[in-house]
Amino acid sequence: MKPIVECVPNFSEGRNQAVVNALTAAVRAVKGVALLDQHMDADHHRSVLTFAGPPDLVGQAAFEAVRTAIGLIDLKSHSGQHPRVGAADVVPFIPLRESTMAQCIELAKHVGARIGSELKVPVFLYERACSEPDRATLEAIRRGGLEGLGTRMRTDSRWVPDYGPCALHPTAGAIAVGARPPLIAFNVILETTDLSIAHAIAKKIRSSEGGLPSVKALGFELRSRGQVQVSMNLTNFRETPIHTAYEAVKQEAAQRGVSISGSELVGLIPQEALTETAAHDLQLGRLASDQVLEKRMNLGEEL
Amino acid sequence: MKPIVECVPNFSEGRNQAVVNALTAAVRAVKGVALLDQHMDADHHRSVLTFAGPPDLVGQAAFEAVRTAIGLIDLKSHSGQHPRVGAADVVPFIPLRESTMAQCIELAKHVGARIGSELKVPVFLYERACSEPDRATLEAIRRGGLEGLGTRMRTDSRWVPDYGPCALHPTAGAIAVGARPPLIAFNVILETTDLSIAHAIAKKIRSSEGGLPSVKALGFELRSRGQVQVSMNLTNFRETPIHTAYEAVKQEAAQRGVSISGSELVGLIPQEALTETAAHDLQLGRLASDQVLEKRMNLGEEL
Repeated sequence: MKPIVECVPNFSEGRNQAVVNALTAAVRAVKGVALLDQHMDADHHRSVLTFAGPPDLVGQAAFEAVRTAIGLIDLKSHSGQHPRVGAADVVPFIPLRESTMAQCIELAKHVGARIGSELKVPVFLYERACSEPDRATLEAIRRGGLEGLGTRMRTDSRWVPDYGPCALHPTAGAIAVGARPPLIAFNVILETTDLSIAHAIAKKIRSSEGGLPSVKALGFELRSRGQVQVSMNLTNFRETPIHTAYEAVKQEAAQRGVSISGSELVGLIPQEALTETAAHDLQLGRLASDQVLEKRMNLGEEL
Repeated sequence: MKPIVECVPNFSEGRNQAVVNALTAAVRAVKGVALLDQHMDADHHRSVLTFAGPPDLVGQAAFEAVRTAIGLIDLKSHSGQHPRVGAADVVPFIPLRESTMAQCIELAKHVGARIGSELKVPVFLYERACSEPDRATLEAIRRGGLEGLGTRMRTDSRWVPDYGPCALHPTAGAIAVGARPPLIAFNVILETTDLSIAHAIAKKIRSSEGGLPSVKALGFELRSRGQVQVSMNLTNFRETPIHTAYEAVKQEAAQRGVSISGSELVGLIPQEALTETAAHDLQLGRLASDQVLEKRMNLGEEL
């Protein structure tokens, strides 16, 4: 099988469908790349695309989508719940079938270099592609928001971008381009308008505060729905399975007298993560993934 | 793709590993057939094999496994929790990839005819392959146990077998051979030794008593574990999903002051059934199966 990589870029537009359509069209125009999912959130004012294909074509599609975003999205008139530093905010490459992290790092650098030189937007390499441990995480890049980043770029030599000009783009800000393992983006919605509850729960469960391992969490207001949300990234679902994260939020919410309204996945989830959740919830003693028909069919070599 | 059918025969031996090994060896000896699962239960005194492949080869493997069972299993010295009428008790063929129910019915008749003429065991075609609506179900064939069936065969012209002699085989009894859609065999184990509770719950939830749709249920004692079990066949998991069956048993048990010790699948389960369960338990609003990475990858035609 040929190596396949995935790209899950996040763009700072979650309200104007025409703009998001232009982004997906830019991806679809690259033959050989499959657009697997698109997610648009008005409260976050953010869209997430998921596409996959051979590395060079995925890199090309990512570049074209970023070019489109920079042409259509103006951060000066942008305000959403989700922290961001760019019109095209983050562009991660993820190894899937037969591809390696090394290939994704190389791809991030190649696409980052093109964005810097051709589109004149400052590029910070992040996660596995980072050149500076201080700025490996999105949290570090976003510290102080767009202004904070702009100040660091002007005043701190450790914040010279990896590619492109050493100043924010007037309308498109900056962009984080990187490589990382797959993650599950999972949001749990609470039956309350009290944002402080979502903040408190997010703080309680996230790894950085001693909560669950491999969990990033933020609290957001969903003004359009009159609810709030605990938004999570599960960076290792074997360490903290999705049902563990869900139960933790549910329990913390119950302690505050709040119930769960529902949950949502942003982008895609590996089959195994859902199988494990079902096995847990049904109290299946024997590992259910061994008993999945389709999986056994694939293993049955002689078929 | 070539048509693939599945066969899930049940044999009246769940204690002697050497006998079960001989059954699996008989299947494995047919090149082109993949043994996907084997399940052995000492309390039921029963084993279930799951294998798949091209129809003619699966038919051949089924015949060889039945021949082996008839040679090694003596019903006269057999007593187990599970109702049965044969050493090789039931042999269903199930359409999977690119195969049809009509092909499975034809295969059941072909294999049934060979068992009748070559192995001299009476064969009753059941479910979709049945020739007599009165004896379409396993429950009808098993009514009154082996003795009841023997009496009907001697006294009732509607109970002349489809193939083979019109008398029970002295050690192997009779055999039901048929075709049916896939089903999920799902057992929930209760933390009690009181068999009447398992019986009561099984009666409450099964379709035939006005319970859940597309659910067959029996109560069994698991003497080796000091527990009892509600054993279910979910014949349409879209009508009654596995989590609905689990929750119903759990709730009925709780009303009787009994908790759930665990659950088990016998044989294999379609991926979709587990995905739906996980989506339910996580309160995922959007249908999660649309967001399964592997599934989307398969749909991404251009990859």
